[in-house]
Amino acid sequence: MTGIKTTGEKKLMLFSGRAYPELAEEVAEALGVEPTPTSAYDFANGETFVRFNESVRGSDAFVLQSHTAPINQWIMEQLIMVDALKRASAKRITVVAPFFGYARQDKKHRGREPISARLMADLFKTAGADRLMAVDLHTAQIQGFFDGPVDHLFALPLLTDYIKEKLDTDGVSVVAPDAGRVRVAERWSDELGGCPMAIIHKRRDPDVANEVKVFDVVGEVEGRTCVVVDDMIDTGGTIVKASEALFEEGAARVVVAATHGVLSGPAVDKLKNSRISEVVLTNTLPIPDNKRFDKLTVLSIAPLIARAINEVFSDGSVTSLFGGHS
Amino acid sequence: MTGIKTTGEKKLMLFSGRAYPELAEEVAEALGVEPTPTSAYDFANGETFVRFNESVRGSDAFVLQSHTAPINQWIMEQLIMVDALKRASAKRITVVAPFFGYARQDKKHRGREPISARLMADLFKTAGADRLMAVDLHTAQIQGFFDGPVDHLFALPLLTDYIKEKLDTDGVSVVAPDAGRVRVAERWSDELGGCPMAIIHKRRDPDVANEVKVFDVVGEVEGRTCVVVDDMIDTGGTIVKASEALFEEGAARVVVAATHGVLSGPAVDKLKNSRISEVVLTNTLPIPDNKRFDKLTVLSIAPLIARAINEVFSDGSVTSLFGGHS
Amino acid sequence: MTGIKTTGEKKLMLFSGRAYPELAEEVAEALGVEPTPTSAYDFANGETFVRFNESVRGSDAFVLQSHTAPINQWIMEQLIMVDALKRASAKRITVVAPFFGYARQDKKHRGREPISARLMADLFKTAGADRLMAVDLHTAQIQGFFDGPVDHLFALPLLTDYIKEKLDTDGVSVVAPDAGRVRVAERWSDELGGCPMAIIHKRRDPDVANEVKVFDVVGEVEGRTCVVVDDMIDTGGTIVKASEALFEEGAARVVVAATHGVLSGPAVDKLKNSRISEVVLTNTLPIPDNKRFDKLTVLSIAPLIARAINEVFSDGSVTSLFGGHS
Amino acid sequence: MTGIKTTGEKKLMLFSGRAYPELAEEVAEALGVEPTPTSAYDFANGETFVRFNESVRGSDAFVLQSHTAPINQWIMEQLIMVDALKRASAKRITVVAPFFGYARQDKKHRGREPISARLMADLFKTAGADRLMAVDLHTAQIQGFFDGPVDHLFALPLLTDYIKEKLDTDGVSVVAPDAGRVRVAERWSDELGGCPMAIIHKRRDPDVANEVKVFDVVGEVEGRTCVVVDDMIDTGGTIVKASEALFEEGAARVVVAATHGVLSGPAVDKLKNSRISEVVLTNTLPIPDNKRFDKLTVLSIAPLIARAINEVFSDGSVTSLFGGHS
Amino acid sequence: MTGIKTTGEKKLMLFSGRAYPELAEEVAEALGVEPTPTSAYDFANGETFVRFNESVRGSDAFVLQSHTAPINQWIMEQLIMVDALKRASAKRITVVAPFFGYARQDKKHRGREPISARLMADLFKTAGADRLMAVDLHTAQIQGFFDGPVDHLFALPLLTDYIKEKLDTDGVSVVAPDAGRVRVAERWSDELGGCPMAIIHKRRDPDVANEVKVFDVVGEVEGRTCVVVDDMIDTGGTIVKASEALFEEGAARVVVAATHGVLSGPAVDKLKNSRISEVVLTNTLPIPDNKRFDKLTVLSIAPLIARAINEVFSDGSVTSLFGGHS
Amino acid sequence: MTGIKTTGEKKLMLFSGRAYPELAEEVAEALGVEPTPTSAYDFANGETFVRFNESVRGSDAFVLQSHTAPINQWIMEQLIMVDALKRASAKRITVVAPFFGYARQDKKHRGREPISARLMADLFKTAGADRLMAVDLHTAQIQGFFDGPVDHLFALPLLTDYIKEKLDTDGVSVVAPDAGRVRVAERWSDELGGCPMAIIHKRRDPDVANEVKVFDVVGEVEGRTCVVVDDMIDTGGTIVKASEALFEEGAARVVVAATHGVLSGPAVDKLKNSRISEVVLTNTLPIPDNKRFDKLTVLSIAPLIARAINEVFSDGSVTSLFGGHS
Repeated sequence: MTGIKTTGEKKLMLFSGRAYPELAEEVAEALGVEPTPTSAYDFANGETFVRFNESVRGSDAFVLQSHTAPINQWIMEQLIMVDALKRASAKRITVVAPFFGYARQDKKHRGREPISARLMADLFKTAGADRLMAVDLHTAQIQGFFDGPVDHLFALPLLTDYIKEKLDTDGVSVVAPDAGRVRVAERWSDELGGCPMAIIHKRRDPDVANEVKVFDVVGEVEGRTCVVVDDMIDTGGTIVKASEALFEEGAARVVVAATHGVLSGPAVDKLKNSRISEVVLTNTLPIPDNKRFDKLTVLSIAPLIARAINEVFSDGSVTSLFGGHS
Repeated sequence: MTGIKTTGEKKLMLFSGRAYPELAEEVAEALGVEPTPTSAYDFANGETFVRFNESVRGSDAFVLQSHTAPINQWIMEQLIMVDALKRASAKRITVVAPFFGYARQDKKHRGREPISARLMADLFKTAGADRLMAVDLHTAQIQGFFDGPVDHLFALPLLTDYIKEKLDTDGVSVVAPDAGRVRVAERWSDELGGCPMAIIHKRRDPDVANEVKVFDVVGEVEGRTCVVVDDMIDTGGTIVKASEALFEEGAARVVVAATHGVLSGPAVDKLKNSRISEVVLTNTLPIPDNKRFDKLTVLSIAPLIARAINEVFSDGSVTSLFGGHS
Repeated sequence: MTGIKTTGEKKLMLFSGRAYPELAEEVAEALGVEPTPTSAYDFANGETFVRFNESVRGSDAFVLQSHTAPINQWIMEQLIMVDALKRASAKRITVVAPFFGYARQDKKHRGREPISARLMADLFKTAGADRLMAVDLHTAQIQGFFDGPVDHLFALPLLTDYIKEKLDTDGVSVVAPDAGRVRVAERWSDELGGCPMAIIHKRRDPDVANEVKVFDVVGEVEGRTCVVVDDMIDTGGTIVKASEALFEEGAARVVVAATHGVLSGPAVDKLKNSRISEVVLTNTLPIPDNKRFDKLTVLSIAPLIARAINEVFSDGSVTSLFGGHS
Repeated sequence: MTGIKTTGEKKLMLFSGRAYPELAEEVAEALGVEPTPTSAYDFANGETFVRFNESVRGSDAFVLQSHTAPINQWIMEQLIMVDALKRASAKRITVVAPFFGYARQDKKHRGREPISARLMADLFKTAGADRLMAVDLHTAQIQGFFDGPVDHLFALPLLTDYIKEKLDTDGVSVVAPDAGRVRVAERWSDELGGCPMAIIHKRRDPDVANEVKVFDVVGEVEGRTCVVVDDMIDTGGTIVKASEALFEEGAARVVVAATHGVLSGPAVDKLKNSRISEVVLTNTLPIPDNKRFDKLTVLSIAPLIARAINEVFSDGSVTSLFGGHS
Repeated sequence: MTGIKTTGEKKLMLFSGRAYPELAEEVAEALGVEPTPTSAYDFANGETFVRFNESVRGSDAFVLQSHTAPINQWIMEQLIMVDALKRASAKRITVVAPFFGYARQDKKHRGREPISARLMADLFKTAGADRLMAVDLHTAQIQGFFDGPVDHLFALPLLTDYIKEKLDTDGVSVVAPDAGRVRVAERWSDELGGCPMAIIHKRRDPDVANEVKVFDVVGEVEGRTCVVVDDMIDTGGTIVKASEALFEEGAARVVVAATHGVLSGPAVDKLKNSRISEVVLTNTLPIPDNKRFDKLTVLSIAPLIARAINEVFSDGSVTSLFGGHS
Repeated sequence: MTGIKTTGEKKLMLFSGRAYPELAEEVAEALGVEPTPTSAYDFANGETFVRFNESVRGSDAFVLQSHTAPINQWIMEQLIMVDALKRASAKRITVVAPFFGYARQDKKHRGREPISARLMADLFKTAGADRLMAVDLHTAQIQGFFDGPVDHLFALPLLTDYIKEKLDTDGVSVVAPDAGRVRVAERWSDELGGCPMAIIHKRRDPDVANEVKVFDVVGEVEGRTCVVVDDMIDTGGTIVKASEALFEEGAARVVVAATHGVLSGPAVDKLKNSRISEVVLTNTLPIPDNKRFDKLTVLSIAPLIARAINEVFSDGSVTSLFGGHS
């Protein structure tokens, strides 16, 4: 028969955007690789340019970018990296977005709005992404926005292990800071041995006009250590108001745990000045020194991402990382 | 210049699958049209056949099917209808699925599961659907599963108008029967003048092995009329257990309101035999006489669908039907 | 150079839907594998759920389902299995549909009909199928409905080997029961040493109104053993009327051979009570005990499917299984 | 409300490739339009160039090309015309290919063959065609190769009207020249009042090695006027051998009727020198003077195409042109 | 016949991003419409949100955004606007990008680079754009990057009219500042009555290592008024060095004319301090007061865009705006 | 775990169209393979048929065709080959088109023209091509027309090595025969040690009506050896007129170097009879004996293509073949 035969090979390569190279370094070290050397810069008018300094032909490429501010800049850079990989004959391209940008715009709240989370998923597909990997998507349905495999990782074990070590879970109540987080709070409650749960119910104040909200605590929190759980802390407004409502209802102590530390605008000051005892986050997004404060604890997400990349590369099971959940 | 010019025309046509033709008749009457005569039958081996008895060329086609049991049968029939319309040169095809099937499989709960709601959206797209119309999607994110416009209609005003007429809202608490419905309960609470809210928290029983669930009531319900709100009642299990938990906590009365009356298996018996005072549903799904019982009220969704179809056809605003929400 | 290299691997995995697991077991045994353990069930409202109990990442997946009644149910299940495999990172997905459903709706017979066979091919593609494998498609053109490789297997050698063993081919005439099967009959005639051929010509009865058909025998059958060949026996109506026409023209004996035993409705009774001597089928579709009868012979298609899967997996040649035809 | 409103308009425009402009002229005249002036030529190296000399923006464009020799040249020209129309903002593009090229390669006869008919359908789609119109596709399944509406026109009434006028149908037998044409012969038989049918069965000669074919007549033809019906006459080989076989079996007279006059290579000489009394064709393909001969009759297909284009443009019914068939 | 018929309508709507609303206002005024009121803002973490305040259903939507700095931000906003329009049932969406961002990355200069201009075209298509409109694309081939109609407008007449009015063209030489602009210079030369042309040839300095470039003037410029023509002025480096080379070769005077005033970084200072007499630009990109200087002339592109939008909306001819070129 | 595991394999296979099998033979020999035996022929009506005589399942297929006259014929054959490979389960398909046909139609020069180069890229994609390989594309932007990896090879080193060997580069000027080739001329100038450059400026003759062109030489050529460089020589008209203009300006000698020898129509005679000293081409297109003449030198492109195919197959670096350019 005509033709030349050789044995097939697989080659894992890790690529990092410029948004948060330190996380890529950490992941790379855990994997035992170097991030592939890459030239990336912006032209004078802001257009982004990327070039890889090594052949990527045939590689199983993982492209890590943190969707931090300026978020449109970094998403566009990641899209451009994917395009360059596709055109350079990478065999398979996995977009790794520990915090998936625009996840909160996952539906039309009113008419004539975009569904930007779906749009982002489609843009990555169009650029050439075969797969997506993300940690704690704002809503799990976003998995369904991407036309292909999504590895959805959970920071829950990382966070609950930390909390269980630090706190006596007997006195703990888990609190959902709004309606959208009740399901997460239920998972925390199960993980902490079936501890009680409360939720903060935001409603219009019937005494005041229009959109002013009252924060009602639904459930028992008096005298308890409240662990307020969320997927992200952005401006901190909701979390701080929630904690105030909890103290008003007699909470003994409030601890906050969330996966993504967006920490926009006044978030750091608000949290520092609040009565919250401790804030626990992961580093899916960069938390620079000027955003760090005494009662903040940052856990590294890198080992989890590295293990997941390794399972994907070696055709193992990402599901197994979570005791069957993935 | 060469060529022939004429004025453009638009033609609305309504098509009905065999799952629930009575609803199509009602919608048609509200619109002032006849459903287009259609031959539909199953071959001996169960393959479905459809043929339209009139030219549909250039039409703005609305294809109404109720995703009731046997659901795979009726979804397939709707797909086949869409294919036939596409091949017969309909100009625009809107799939109208008042209850959108498989909506609950909107994410992977664990690894190696399908996301069937996305799959259904893609199947309709592939068959030739340009647009989708549905009432109260299980989660609003499903809008983002379809690559095109989705008209998402809300039964909320229909249901709350009825409740406000029947009950003194002063004594009412709105109850979310599980974590996923808290947001809906909040909307009800706002609509009913900021009435209190409670939620049912399902958790593992620490005294019993494995998956047994305890129903905890979070929030105040003692002495109150509890309106348990949900998007659908399927087997009725959750709703009935929730109402029991409410009575245990001292609820005076329980009323249940939901959009979709799936009413599978033992649902009717369970509801009949429960202490629930009234069950309010709409007819997005057929509720045949043998599933009707004294304390059941069924409101017609047809006027809402007819108005929405009319707005879509005449390039009006569906958003305006809901005071800005759509 | 950066990155990690390992040798590539291929892993064949066989998945079975619930329609006819016995065939999958037979194929699996011939291949020397176990079907991958799968949880599949229907929810109370009929929605189908599937989950694989083992990692399928990187696998060369073959998804076997028999398109038997309730056919829409089983096709939908197979679509959902494919979706789950795609999202779980299977490397390549081959839909194995021994009898390809809706194959008879392969064209518009009149205006405003669907072309459901194309639709099914597109639905499988959309769900994530890379390849299709089927036995004796109703028309070979259906290969062209799928946008990708189709392995089209032929039961002809299996059936003719059996007939040649059982009958003295000298006295045999091959009979096409209608216009669409003449080509198949020609292949049979060649295979049986150039034996004579006849066809049944259905035409309108000029003496009776409308659609009543007369069965004319075209060709010589007097005193001969007629082997009526078809791709499938559905309700049996055509076959039985054809055999009656043959006996009227003096046929000595009628044997029927077909690949797919659909056997809908009254088929079994009709065949049992007919003057047909023997009916030979394969098990591309399940033929349960209550459909079996004395003069029915069922040949197993499993070895053929297993050999084809093996050739596909090992980059061999499916064509070679048929002496150059595929 | 913001924006400018005007009444919508539709504009039919007819475009002709260079393969057979006379047919386009005929169709245009029947429609009452001029074909849009177009510059088309080949560069020195054979590359084809097309430019339209008038604005086509917003038009309902019908692009007529005859797939005659050199067929690849003319198909490519039509693809390029469609591309130019798409980029020039035509609103809807219908490819009109009276004879659809490559229709005979509608399946893989053996392994590792193309399915060129599907490929052509996909190429037209890719270039920008929204719709396809063709006369008497080689197999009706080709409708399913195009992902969109196909207007499938039938020359049957045109041909049978002519035959009924010329011949006394009492003495007529309809003959299918091979297995693939039996269905068409059945339709002729019905149309000619249920006249008898025969078929030519080609089989390997058991006395001669390999591929030599024997032409067997199946059915009664002695003393009858045989109307041999086919979709096309290409090299004429099959038709002439079939007619010889018919005369050997005692046929009184042979008339041939087919839609497409491909008339390649020796076809004209073979037909002229044969004992066939008359050959009836349509002009879906150009039949230049040097291919015309005494016993050849060419019927114009232009009125049928013009009527179909008009129905498509005005959202009428193409189905109605054929008494319900389309 | 069933159904409701009405006359079709078309509605032009103009949408403006936040990058340069003044241009949209100018275009709107020329068209006689108001830009549709739109809510657009950035969330604290930089995610962009857009909502239209009026129904856009059925509209012929033109979405104008200037790809100025921060360019990734504004492109993303335009993509999100297109997504929102698509999901809100706009009938046709035209992206208007007077300066098309990333146009210079229109090919791989070396291996493993992106082709960002194609990527942008694909991203707009994915978001839902049907059409693209741009002025003076960096290379005309970018038209081919978009899968659909592109209206390519030329500022040439605007610029040459101005130059012809200001300068005695007898003494003028047109100068291409680099190899990529020679074709444009030829068009200018034709437009200015066949005046002489020169080009600046950049080459490696053989006396200096590596990438240092020498600017050679090819062609006669001594004593002449040199009009240096380019599609854009970005950092001004090339243009200023080119003008220096021209003065060295004895040019009497240098005037610069370009369509797009990117004016990044030190551009304004460089131009101000150079010996260039006049710089002529259009306002495809915003040129704020702090970037304006005495010898800068800015011509408005708005009338051209407005006329083109009007032709597109009314199915006129954009080609006709340029005497046959488009 | 269930399933069968084996080691993956890769198999390179080379396929040749009928346009220029000699080049495929040369490439095959350099690679150390045989072109896969293929049956290809035209039916009587010109339809092309292709069948591979060996299993191609799982292969890394390279399909080489020279886009020479009759170009539409050979492009269509290559499309059909790709279709057959896709349907026969080739793993990856690379279209190798040393001269990429229709490359000059890479933009709309005026309204209502096609962009045929993009169309060809899309047709290959649709047929099933995963990758494209070409030599010296007419414009580099064509890389961006294909939605996938393009290996763009350069004949520059081959040509300049030859020129450097034959000529004393001290007296050489590089000449761009028109505006579109200036960039290429710059690369030649750099490669030949920074030698001077001139360009031919074609402009309308102000003394003669309409489209007559004057050939102006811009730059110094007196007494020099002019190397006129182009990507292709088609009819030779431009090249010969350019050389005449150069001699008029005092050029001592003219040598022509180009990659693609299209040599249409009168090209050979024109070149032979011109004062051009030598013409250097590669064999990307066949140059049969009757097109060869004394002063013509043809360099083989086969080694370059073979090396590129080998790098692609073995996941090496094509970029490295050009010192970083690709």
